[in-house]
Amino acid sequence: MTALFQRACIIGVGLIGGSLARGAKQHGLIGHISGFGRRESHLRQAYELGVVDTFSTSIEDAVAECDLIVLATPLCSMPLILEQLKTLVSEDVVITDVGSAKRSVIQAVKNAYGKLPENFVAGHPIAGTEKSGVEASFAELYQNRCVILTPDNSTNPDAVQKIQTLWEGVGAEVVMMTAAHHDEVLAATSHVPHVLAFTLVDTLAKMQEHSEIFRFAAGGFRDFTRIASSDPEMWRDISIENSDAILTVLRRFQQSMDELCSAIEQQDGDQIETIYRRAKLARDQHITV
Amino acid sequence: MTALFQRACIIGVGLIGGSLARGAKQHGLIGHISGFGRRESHLRQAYELGVVDTFSTSIEDAVAECDLIVLATPLCSMPLILEQLKTLVSEDVVITDVGSAKRSVIQAVKNAYGKLPENFVAGHPIAGTEKSGVEASFAELYQNRCVILTPDNSTNPDAVQKIQTLWEGVGAEVVMMTAAHHDEVLAATSHVPHVLAFTLVDTLAKMQEHSEIFRFAAGGFRDFTRIASSDPEMWRDISIENSDAILTVLRRFQQSMDELCSAIEQQDGDQIETIYRRAKLARDQHITV
Repeated sequence: MTALFQRACIIGVGLIGGSLARGAKQHGLIGHISGFGRRESHLRQAYELGVVDTFSTSIEDAVAECDLIVLATPLCSMPLILEQLKTLVSEDVVITDVGSAKRSVIQAVKNAYGKLPENFVAGHPIAGTEKSGVEASFAELYQNRCVILTPDNSTNPDAVQKIQTLWEGVGAEVVMMTAAHHDEVLAATSHVPHVLAFTLVDTLAKMQEHSEIFRFAAGGFRDFTRIASSDPEMWRDISIENSDAILTVLRRFQQSMDELCSAIEQQDGDQIETIYRRAKLARDQHITV
Repeated sequence: MTALFQRACIIGVGLIGGSLARGAKQHGLIGHISGFGRRESHLRQAYELGVVDTFSTSIEDAVAECDLIVLATPLCSMPLILEQLKTLVSEDVVITDVGSAKRSVIQAVKNAYGKLPENFVAGHPIAGTEKSGVEASFAELYQNRCVILTPDNSTNPDAVQKIQTLWEGVGAEVVMMTAAHHDEVLAATSHVPHVLAFTLVDTLAKMQEHSEIFRFAAGGFRDFTRIASSDPEMWRDISIENSDAILTVLRRFQQSMDELCSAIEQQDGDQIETIYRRAKLARDQHITV
């Protein structure tokens, strides 16, 4: 059986890129995988873990003869890398990305290429943990997870199909939507929760008796703040690249918060209970465990 | 070996009271356990599960000849129950509670008795799950969890010692502090996280495309919002009974949130990263997993 792609380059071999590489190798979806990144030590680690077959800190070497390039770097690195890819890689090569904000990546592609190349398929796997780095990567990360692809009318359907097949091959369910809709949905379900968790932990850390406070944190707090252990640089980038959608949800949240604070101030038990009951109902209805 | 208490009445046999009963029986700490509550069907279930030895919907019958009474009802039910206990139970009997807000329980005791009886030991096990009801109770709930006791200078040291021994007997670590300090610490680590989780889920539930939004919720969202599946009535009570401490923390949170929103609006990456980095550091330092 021929592999779906003969030779792929993973640009940024961390949790997300590394897990895709592991899954794709395990399922025979990619013949040869090269890794590119800034730090040789990280790439060597990826090589020694068997995540990539070869690696180089020269992007030119790493992408040579590839028929697939996966952009899995932090969002802020993408513009520079896209500028380089434009000069190094034929437009026949399928390029995809895994960025958590889609309009900004697409804008960076347009800035670099002057248009959206037909073989660029913007994507985002809804997966990950609060851990990062290739040492945290594993082949099963995408099993039963959603991957959102946001092609537009000019995107080559064959390229979209191949990227869909790649993600399905590592166990994911692929969903198509517009980049703008993706950014709204992710702001609500992922970006704003991270912002709130970071803010709460920072608020408590600034309180004088914070060591003692954290001592009495139980399981609920641990779960609630787990995402505050996520990579600060990655979340800085997401906060900036999807700022408008995040701020829209945050404004709605603040409004709900103001209403609840008033109800608490006024000791309005009925109103408080109505809000909590509605929230519990929504969560129990839509989310298991 | 004689049991620590000969006959205890658990008033409110749910997750918290039921788990204490199960643990105390398993470790031979209480000779006989009777259950009291409003609904006979719930009490019968507790009896059939082996959580209580006898039960009654008459508080007079349930507390007869007890040397320990555990108040494990919702906070809002405590004033009425305390009024009844005052007339039914000798002041020699040790009474403790498991309420999540301590100043309001102590105030309710003072309102009922005209003073704080020397054998009343206010307490709060920092344990629980988003589930509720006796069917969710289990003997190991308190193992390696903290229980905070908030006696004051007038509390009988023997009563405090016996309640401490009871909690330690079911595997908990007992910590003493003032009721006011308890309420501050719990507002920060438990009450405010619940308020934020309820508010976020309710905010999203009010968005038009909410079914679709929840569809793309990943593991981080599940963890972050798990506490929004908690019992709305219980959290209504806590929000009211500890409102001042909760609002103090919420105001600090709102201030931090405003600062972060400004940084996001101004695309101030350094400031955003500083906040996220500080939060990650605090969480990784104080909380495992």
